[in-house]
This record gives sequence, structure tokens and C-alpha cells, in this order.
Amino acid sequence: MKKFAVVMAGGVGERFWPKSRRHMPKQFLNLGGKDSLIQRTVSRLEKVFLPEDIYLVVSSKHMPLVKEHLPHIPENNIITEPVGRNTAPCIGLAATYLKKKDPEGTMIVLPADHMILDEEKFLECVRKAVDIASSHEILVTIGITPTRPETGYGYIQISEAINSEEPAVHKGIKFVEKPDYHKAVQYMDNGNYLWNSGIFAWKISVILKKIDEFLPDLYKGLEELDKCSDIYKLKASLERVFPSLPSISIDYGVMERVSDIAVLRGSFGWDDLGSWTALSENLPKDENGNIIEGNFVGVEVENSIISSSSVLIAAIGVKDIIIVEADGAVLVCHVSQAQKVKEIIDKLKQKGETKYL
Amino acid sequence: MKKFAVVMAGGVGERFWPKSRRHMPKQFLNLGGKDSLIQRTVSRLEKVFLPEDIYLVVSSKHMPLVKEHLPHIPENNIITEPVGRNTAPCIGLAATYLKKKDPEGTMIVLPADHMILDEEKFLECVRKAVDIASSHEILVTIGITPTRPETGYGYIQISEAINSEEPAVHKGIKFVEKPDYHKAVQYMDNGNYLWNSGIFAWKISVILKKIDEFLPDLYKGLEELDKCSDIYKLKASLERVFPSLPSISIDYGVMERVSDIAVLRGSFGWDDLGSWTALSENLPKDENGNIIEGNFVGVEVENSIISSSSVLIAAIGVKDIIIVEADGAVLVCHVSQAQKVKEIIDKLKQKGETKYL
Repeated sequence: MKKFAVVMAGGVGERFWPKSRRHMPKQFLNLGGKDSLIQRTVSRLEKVFLPEDIYLVVSSKHMPLVKEHLPHIPENNIITEPVGRNTAPCIGLAATYLKKKDPEGTMIVLPADHMILDEEKFLECVRKAVDIASSHEILVTIGITPTRPETGYGYIQISEAINSEEPAVHKGIKFVEKPDYHKAVQYMDNGNYLWNSGIFAWKISVILKKIDEFLPDLYKGLEELDKCSDIYKLKASLERVFPSLPSISIDYGVMERVSDIAVLRGSFGWDDLGSWTALSENLPKDENGNIIEGNFVGVEVENSIISSSSVLIAAIGVKDIIIVEADGAVLVCHVSQAQKVKEIIDKLKQKGETKYL
Repeated sequence: MKKFAVVMAGGVGERFWPKSRRHMPKQFLNLGGKDSLIQRTVSRLEKVFLPEDIYLVVSSKHMPLVKEHLPHIPENNIITEPVGRNTAPCIGLAATYLKKKDPEGTMIVLPADHMILDEEKFLECVRKAVDIASSHEILVTIGITPTRPETGYGYIQISEAINSEEPAVHKGIKFVEKPDYHKAVQYMDNGNYLWNSGIFAWKISVILKKIDEFLPDLYKGLEELDKCSDIYKLKASLERVFPSLPSISIDYGVMERVSDIAVLRGSFGWDDLGSWTALSENLPKDENGNIIEGNFVGVEVENSIISSSSVLIAAIGVKDIIIVEADGAVLVCHVSQAQKVKEIIDKLKQKGETKYL
């Protein structure tokens, strides 16, 4: 029985604008590192999985980028979505695809654009998640021990640990949506809430059965793809079938509705890098608390994030500021407002400034 | 007896970096207007002086810019300084040059890079200053009624008004250096202190006599230039003589040492545009108190100055911020720190980043 890793890399990552763009989503950026996030994600998995068992789901329009960043991944291991349809169709598509490789197989799915600081601990969790998933008929996920009352993540409520050895395994009680600050503090204090990492492991047959049960419309579409006699025909049918699938997350479509979930407690320095501010929580800073990339001169600049691609950035007398230049655009944003980058993108859409999207 | 206007345009204007550069000083920028500051200065003077009586003193390396901005000024009316030597040598050179045109003539000298809002009132002052200078053996200057306790300007202490008609004429008591804030408030309250505008009128013979009296080294250099039999030879001698002249301002070298000064009180909306912040004191703002030039999108941006030459600037959740992009550099500066742009330039010099100077 084969064990597959599936990297979900279809996201657009608007929140790292102006560095992330439609043609250059977050997973292809080298945020706080030498390699891009997708390169780091695949490289980590190569320590556990055979190269031929690592699959990617990407947007078809980013294929040139994927080939540039991961030239060693065989083309047949890259599944392309003609349009984005959130994680449930993405996962369903990968399961349908891998079923043809080994219907008894197990898969772990992971986002391509997260930051992981302690690789060893992370890989331990991955191994254990796949082991549990391959030997049980249950859904497995990795939850992250919260390090702050974060309101930008979903949480998983868990029971007491089932085992004592690291990483601990808990029974999942409930997936909960992003809380307000008050609730997030309660979750921290309670201790039985973990961050939802978006990493899941299961047998291919098990997740497809759950999709059939909870998302019948999606399942019907996947069945149509499944009829294709081989992988090449499946790829060809995607253009027709995929756009008609319902756009829904696996969290909302499946995980929130099932009761038999195993949750591994992960403590490996994880962040989904949801905004520029996340960098300051994960990267080393200079003596003034600044994170600096590119050509910069500063006078009295504190606790700021500076990133320049091609210009000289000079700053004077500012603190808690994000200054990012990329590809003909400059963002200046207070760190407390980094979530509002989406409002800038909305305004640019309204103004028809497509070259900056 | 001829009346000349001399526009001093040799300055470098570092304080509007990154828009002002060595190759593009402030007087060639169109700060808050359609035309450049030097174009606006000359255009104002053309309403009082014959075109052939308007002269410019410029840095030789900016000649191409001068010709581009002022193509109608005859080349013989443009006096070039091979190096910058502050205002006393600049004025001495112009006086020596104009003496060959009319030794009995009167000249008014004005900086090229100041902003003037009420042109009519300004021209009244200019006419009156030249009239007084041409009929008396005294130095005349225009002082500006202060509108705020500005610490960035020098002041002139004046006596009671000599006449009652507008613009009032006062006897100058003392030129005083830039005050601290406490003193500046006292000057405002006192009412007998005006801002030093750097605009002066006098007979050519009178200013040369004062230079001979107070700045003998400079006078000696000017005499050598004066020996040249014609203007063409004078121009040729400049390269040799000018660099050896003492670098000193006319304020410090002459005005602070003489007692017979007539001061016209000017109230015509004047600003020497000493920093980016000066723009917000002189230009109309949008409903959020912002001054915006170029391609900009903002979310919750207040009381800020935004200027883009070629990129899109986006800002979120900032106030009292200067954001300027020009020629491969971006400045982000708190409005209260705009004077520190010079520190950025010093750092760039230290780092050898000459292409940004």
C-alpha cells in the first residue's frame, strides 16, 4: 500500500501584495528564506517520501513557475486545476488521481505556502499521521499548539491525549472558525484548542467515502473524472468538469461534520504566513527590531518590515511599518493593518489597474 | 540707469530627496505646480523686467536643464558657476558681470526655488525694492511677515515703519540666525521680526563697495574677473578664479555687518520650501488632509504627502507620513522628521551609493 504526499499549491496569496501577484503567488516567494516556500515544502517531504510519490496540485496558469521552481518533479506528478475551487475539490481531485495509482493507498495533503521552523519535529508528525491514517479508517490532522491568541486561524477542540509519547495524539472534538480576540485568549488558557494547520492524512478510499457522504455534488463530478480510463484522459476531462464543481473548503465540507478525527499535536514552529506581519513573528530581527530585505537605509526606524526588490528604500522616524516594493508598486502599511491589503487589491480591481494585480 | 533681476539658481536642494538629486536640484522640480520653480520665478519677473534684463546664475553642470526649462533666456544672460560658493560670491559675480552692462545700474537678486502664492503683492514689493535701491545708496531687502513660529528661517529685526503705504518700509536693525522654538514664538509675539527671504536689491556699485569693505578676499577675486576686457573673457576666467573664492553667504558676509538697510514688509504667501513638510503648509489638501501626486491608492491615510513619479504607491493605516518615489528610490518619512533627509544622503555618500545622490 503506497503512501503519497500531496502539496496543495493553487492559492493566490493576495495578502503578500505587492510581492505576491496573480502571476506570482505566495508559494513561489522566498519569504524569509533562500528558497521559495514551495521549494522548501517539497524538499521537506523528500526526506520522508519517495520522489515519485510526491504530487502537486497547482493552477494550470502557474505551470511554468512550478517547472522553474521544481524542475525535478515529473510532469505526471503535477495535477493542474483549470480554475481554483478551494480545498475540497482540490483534495477530491488528488484522491481520484491517486486512486488509479493505488486504491488502497494513503495520502497526506499539505499547503505549499506555510513556514515550518523545526523540520525534524515536523517530519515526525508527518510520519506518525501517515502511519495512523494507513492503519485506521479515520481522518487524521495535525493541530498546532498555539503560541499566541491568534484570531487569524481556525482552531480544533481536542480531548485528552490518547497516548503519551511525542507527538501526542488526541481525539478531535470540533473544528471551530476563526475566533474573536476574547475567544482566542480563552482557547489559549483552556489548553484543549489547537490551531488548524490545514494538514490532513487519510486513506484515499476513506476521504472519497466522506466526500460521497457530505459533498455528493462534488463526488458526482469526481466520479465523472474517475471514468476516464487513464491519467492522461483524466487530465483532459478536467477542463470540462472542474469549473462545475462546488467551491468549498475541506474543513467546512467534511472536517466540521465528522466525529472520528485523530489530531496530532504539533509544536514545530508553524505559521501559515497569513500577512506581512507574520514575518515579524517568525524571522530574526536586527538590533532595532527590523526585518530587512534588499537595499535599505534608515534613520530611527523600529519594529518594521522592509522589503525591496529593485529600488532603494529610505525611511526616517517610523516604527511598526511595513514597506514593500515589488514590480512597479510600493506598499506602506501599519503593521496592525496588514490584513487590509485585500482592500487595496479590491480598489485596484475597481480602478481597472490589472497590471498591479 | 538699467534695472536688472538676478535669479540665483545654483542650489542643490538635498531636502527634496529622492525627487531632488545632484542632476535635478529643487529649482527644476514642479513642486506643487505645473511649471518648475525656476520657470515660475522667471515668469513672475518677466512682468516687471525686460527679458534681456533678467539674468540667471546657475551651476555649469545644470546648463542643459536650464536651457530645457528656460529656452527663451539668451545664453549671455546665463552666468555659470563652475562650483558652488554660496551667495556672496554668486552675487559678487553677478554684480561684476552686470557692471559691464551698466555701472550705474540697480539689481535685485532672488532665489530660484521659493514658492510665492500672491504674485501681485510680490511684484509690488519687487518694484518698490528696486525703486528704493536705485534712488538711495543703501541695501534693500524684503522681509516676510511670519505666519508661524518657524525655526527653519533666519529673521530680521526691524524698527517701526518709516511710511504707511503698502508695502511698509522699515529700517533694518539686525539680521538674526535661525532661532529655537521658544525664541521663534517670542519673535512672532513681538511683531518686529520678519523672515529673511533672501531677496535683496541694491545698486551694483553699492554692493561691490560693501563686498570690498567686508569681504576683501572675495573682492580681490572679483577684481581679477573685472579685468577681463569683455563678458566672453570674463566667462573664460571663471573656471580659474571662482573655485578660489571664499564660500560665504551674503547674509553672514555683508547683511549682518551693515546698519543702513531698508526692509520692505512682504505678505504675499512666501515659503522657501525647505523640506517636504513645507508642501503641506502651502498646497491644497484632499478631504483626508493628504497631498497626492501620481498613482496612489490608500486605505485610512491621513495628513500625508504622497508623490510618485513612476510606481503605484499604496498605503494603509498611516498618518503624518511622507512617501516619495523618484528615480529608483523610495522615501518613507514621518512629517516631523523631514529635516533628517540630509542624514539619509550622508549615509548614501558613506556607502558609496552615488547613483542615488
